[in-house]
Amino acid sequence: MRAWQIVSDGGVDALKLAERDVGAPGLGEVKVRMRASAINFRDLATIKDPGPRGLTFPAVPNSDGAGEIVEVGEGVIGLKPGDRVASCFFQDWADGPCSPEIMASALGGALDGVLAEEVILKAGGVIPFPEHMSFEDAATLPCAALTAWNAVVETGGTKAGDTVLLLGTGGVSIYALQFLNMLGARVIITSSSDEKLARAKQMGAWKTVNYRQTPDWDQEVLKLTGGRGVDLTVEVGGPGTLQKSIEATRVAGTIGLIGILVGGEINPLPIMRKSLRVQGIYVGSRRMFADMNRAIAAHGLKPVIHETFAFEEAKSAYHAMEAAGHFGKLVVKC
Amino acid sequence: MRAWQIVSDGGVDALKLAERDVGAPGLGEVKVRMRASAINFRDLATIKDPGPRGLTFPAVPNSDGAGEIVEVGEGVIGLKPGDRVASCFFQDWADGPCSPEIMASALGGALDGVLAEEVILKAGGVIPFPEHMSFEDAATLPCAALTAWNAVVETGGTKAGDTVLLLGTGGVSIYALQFLNMLGARVIITSSSDEKLARAKQMGAWKTVNYRQTPDWDQEVLKLTGGRGVDLTVEVGGPGTLQKSIEATRVAGTIGLIGILVGGEINPLPIMRKSLRVQGIYVGSRRMFADMNRAIAAHGLKPVIHETFAFEEAKSAYHAMEAAGHFGKLVVKC
Amino acid sequence: MRAWQIVSDGGVDALKLAERDVGAPGLGEVKVRMRASAINFRDLATIKDPGPRGLTFPAVPNSDGAGEIVEVGEGVIGLKPGDRVASCFFQDWADGPCSPEIMASALGGALDGVLAEEVILKAGGVIPFPEHMSFEDAATLPCAALTAWNAVVETGGTKAGDTVLLLGTGGVSIYALQFLNMLGARVIITSSSDEKLARAKQMGAWKTVNYRQTPDWDQEVLKLTGGRGVDLTVEVGGPGTLQKSIEATRVAGTIGLIGILVGGEINPLPIMRKSLRVQGIYVGSRRMFADMNRAIAAHGLKPVIHETFAFEEAKSAYHAMEAAGHFGKLVVKC
Amino acid sequence: MRAWQIVSDGGVDALKLAERDVGAPGLGEVKVRMRASAINFRDLATIKDPGPRGLTFPAVPNSDGAGEIVEVGEGVIGLKPGDRVASCFFQDWADGPCSPEIMASALGGALDGVLAEEVILKAGGVIPFPEHMSFEDAATLPCAALTAWNAVVETGGTKAGDTVLLLGTGGVSIYALQFLNMLGARVIITSSSDEKLARAKQMGAWKTVNYRQTPDWDQEVLKLTGGRGVDLTVEVGGPGTLQKSIEATRVAGTIGLIGILVGGEINPLPIMRKSLRVQGIYVGSRRMFADMNRAIAAHGLKPVIHETFAFEEAKSAYHAMEAAGHFGKLVVKC
Repeated sequence: MRAWQIVSDGGVDALKLAERDVGAPGLGEVKVRMRASAINFRDLATIKDPGPRGLTFPAVPNSDGAGEIVEVGEGVIGLKPGDRVASCFFQDWADGPCSPEIMASALGGALDGVLAEEVILKAGGVIPFPEHMSFEDAATLPCAALTAWNAVVETGGTKAGDTVLLLGTGGVSIYALQFLNMLGARVIITSSSDEKLARAKQMGAWKTVNYRQTPDWDQEVLKLTGGRGVDLTVEVGGPGTLQKSIEATRVAGTIGLIGILVGGEINPLPIMRKSLRVQGIYVGSRRMFADMNRAIAAHGLKPVIHETFAFEEAKSAYHAMEAAGHFGKLVVKC
Repeated sequence: MRAWQIVSDGGVDALKLAERDVGAPGLGEVKVRMRASAINFRDLATIKDPGPRGLTFPAVPNSDGAGEIVEVGEGVIGLKPGDRVASCFFQDWADGPCSPEIMASALGGALDGVLAEEVILKAGGVIPFPEHMSFEDAATLPCAALTAWNAVVETGGTKAGDTVLLLGTGGVSIYALQFLNMLGARVIITSSSDEKLARAKQMGAWKTVNYRQTPDWDQEVLKLTGGRGVDLTVEVGGPGTLQKSIEATRVAGTIGLIGILVGGEINPLPIMRKSLRVQGIYVGSRRMFADMNRAIAAHGLKPVIHETFAFEEAKSAYHAMEAAGHFGKLVVKC
Repeated sequence: MRAWQIVSDGGVDALKLAERDVGAPGLGEVKVRMRASAINFRDLATIKDPGPRGLTFPAVPNSDGAGEIVEVGEGVIGLKPGDRVASCFFQDWADGPCSPEIMASALGGALDGVLAEEVILKAGGVIPFPEHMSFEDAATLPCAALTAWNAVVETGGTKAGDTVLLLGTGGVSIYALQFLNMLGARVIITSSSDEKLARAKQMGAWKTVNYRQTPDWDQEVLKLTGGRGVDLTVEVGGPGTLQKSIEATRVAGTIGLIGILVGGEINPLPIMRKSLRVQGIYVGSRRMFADMNRAIAAHGLKPVIHETFAFEEAKSAYHAMEAAGHFGKLVVKC
Repeated sequence: MRAWQIVSDGGVDALKLAERDVGAPGLGEVKVRMRASAINFRDLATIKDPGPRGLTFPAVPNSDGAGEIVEVGEGVIGLKPGDRVASCFFQDWADGPCSPEIMASALGGALDGVLAEEVILKAGGVIPFPEHMSFEDAATLPCAALTAWNAVVETGGTKAGDTVLLLGTGGVSIYALQFLNMLGARVIITSSSDEKLARAKQMGAWKTVNYRQTPDWDQEVLKLTGGRGVDLTVEVGGPGTLQKSIEATRVAGTIGLIGILVGGEINPLPIMRKSLRVQGIYVGSRRMFADMNRAIAAHGLKPVIHETFAFEEAKSAYHAMEAAGHFGKLVVKC
């Protein structure tokens, strides 16, 4: 079977499609015939800059995938050949707080990823996904969806009537929008594209703000909330947004800090003055994944997939990610 | 102005309509021209059995009401004549855990209630209600709605995808159903009336169980949840239901224990065996009320009112409560 | 190597010492040379009444043990031969809420226990213990200590200045007393023995109540707390204590419900009236165990061991448990 | 009776001692004969720079004081003349999360403070203090002690065995050290003075770091914790410390952000990478104050008072605060 591999630090062009025999699953492991893998910005960044991430070549990219189990090792309970499963971003995060040990079990980073026809994963590192979802749908869950769920449910404790600010229309924000609809919250979402904002509105956003036309978007958010600010901001922005997010969040509110694009320097004084909670978020645990799946199943939620690529065309998917014109997820069939 | 008063322990017939001058509001107080008062089972029970509740005659009944402020005392900030407000069940519960001091500030019990044309309440003992609600609507919020909100949001921490069991179709259960719809949860509701179950289904219940036809309704709930049990049970049942509720709730799940009808003896062993949390619930705080109002406003939620009575016909409302044929709230205009 | 085995439902006398070869550890497993095993009431109950617990004969008893790793299977990270480890009561409870799957991984119940010279356990089913502890010390941690920690830290959220009620001087209560000393809380403890109460006092208990001399011990606890009641009750009592514990706990307080001796019927009405939380507790997770170990290490805490028995004399340890005259733990050397 | 008043923006020298008649307490108010007032850095900053804080002259400075009630207004329950009480920093924070309304009720800022012989406060804006404390002792509680309690108990959820980093030996840090001793935690504390570190060690600190001699004190803290980092950092430092505090805190740990000295710019990326929680802290609620008082009473805790000044010498106290050579609190008798 074949796998895509990062063979050098040459960027997307250094990805090679290679034959790879993963052997049989050991005790407590499962072999999965992957059927789809979704791309996150983090995967592109890893390919373009593998050095500081400590990758050893060749390395299989991507954390997110879905497929069907073809073989289970000894001692595996509750899973059997034929089961449709998604990968868990962290192979070792059952539940509870994150830890360095958990962080060392990330797929497509510390460990080989899933952009491959066959992979071997820990039994606790895969999870069955809702019946109404296709492999392509499920491939979008492990990183973007779970990060959004963690931000709005675990970190934000969002309840009906809360107002939540989403920055941009990337994968995490779109999933957050869908979850917040389920949870009865009101969403304010920003983008530089009126077209994307129109789509977000159609998907249920309460208010939209074009941050190009309204550079003081934090003041606009305050105005929309009667001067009070939002209960939660899901901060996935690039450099320079966090200071404004702090401004746009209410006293004693929460900011979920996500994404490797976090950057720039900020003045932390208003965090103190407003009794804010700034919470770093790094995907989520398998228990959160199970909770999320129950919600997705109960609501028949479908992800927004921008484009699906053939396995051989994986490089095109990364180039589409670079071009940043998508609304929704980019998925590669395996 | 007039007020209904409990003048002896003679039950509903001992209610007398009397003239009463409440005077001017003191520092930190407001005078409210009540416009509607909703009846809870607890109000009927208080009238029928005032002795053990320590009432001194005459006592004005009812915790729940809504009206408009006609005068504010010195030192009142943020409220002014003309404001439409609902009463807070506990005059002194701002936020945080309950306490004996808070319990001593209950309207229509420790303190005079609101079935009157004019009342004086603490500024912190009233709360503005959503614009889309009438006085009759808002009069149903202080006890039934807030108890339901406390049970599903504060105690249950309900999130999208959770499954919640509601016992019967009383005021708390119907509000809980409406809130759970907002929160994205699935509701299983019980009743002895197929007609009431049909209405609950129409209002969004996921599954219904007629406990007369299915006396082992706990087993039915287990079946409906694939053997797992519900995440939360809102236990407002009469004698004998709690043991079955314990059976119907999942391992590490929660039971919110509500209502003066709780009765009968139970075997607590399964609470331990299933790592359950059984949480007594006694209405809720003003902060929870504010949260609830934001949710109600965001969703334009309207209460289910079964019947509205003229002020002079208040006794008929209590008799309707006794007859127990209603679906939704009984409200008296003031 | 040898192991004690329950070979029939004949009680303690049906325990047989047998040769057993556990083989080599598989992937993700470790082989441990057990050095000590502590006995809990639950272990005695299992031996005396194995039927309803679904044991298949022969079954090795006991959940609690400590020893040194002699061999690690493939894929084990962070553990090596020579490491001193204790067993985890639940082999599969990493963190988060309990579940039926976790409950199916109990040692000395669903799975073979540790009263043996050699056992094979999952790598995630053992945990290194503090350096200052002997094997005998560490053997007392998995069930009694962790249950106590879960009750006072996770469930009770005990903070300095809280008052906590402990029922009796069994293993859980004595550990709870030691932890509560660390946490700065005040302990009220009950017993029928003045001698045991004197020892508890010496160990730092704030107040003691002899429940034989003071059958209305709940009223005594109320008096000791100025009528307010305790913040937390660790309920490990036999039939009939829970109703009094409910009485002795403050409004909005917590009762941790522990132990297979929970019994009798109770009237749940006061749980509602006092806004109590009754929380079933079933040992605890590996993450809690790690937290507890850090606390034990920081404070150099030593368990109270009543008596240590030779491996061949294990039956005597169970008979001592039956006699119930001990203060502290009963430990068998392996 | 007399009060100190800020009469212009001339700094400490613009403080004037003036006669002031506060009149009688209104409904729900109490008149307190202040006996002592403690100074916080915030009080000095307010005096030196009153403009941006929106003070109107003349304004009585200081949030912290203790005295005895001399008169109670109508409607006051539970307080009577002769009661010894401390002031609450926020007159309107009963419990729950902070809010703009609560922030508008700060003594010595939005409202007149307590550096006076007589003041009128809300009944809910004072709190009885432990019997073993003098007025001077109790005057140190409202701001510094409660902030420290909020940081280590409410925000940090500190449990026995946790390791906590304290920056410097100011009022908040010294109280935090005392509370952490009670809670069974281990303290690492920094200072530029070996003498102050020696005193902190004597008071129970586990490890000390002289940040002048060890400018990379974050690396030293990592070393002391075996590379893991501390569970909680109480960040009260000046410009430039927060980035190092982030470095010194463990994955999924917490930083309590306190104090108007917070300054400088930080790179927030590591907050995300380490799943940190950065929580702004602004004193605390009356309910927290009650919890803290119970802990202080149970442990007979005494504050560290550096120096006590006569009422007429209040300016000297502010000058001592400016000189920054103290270890412990500066208190003015009233």
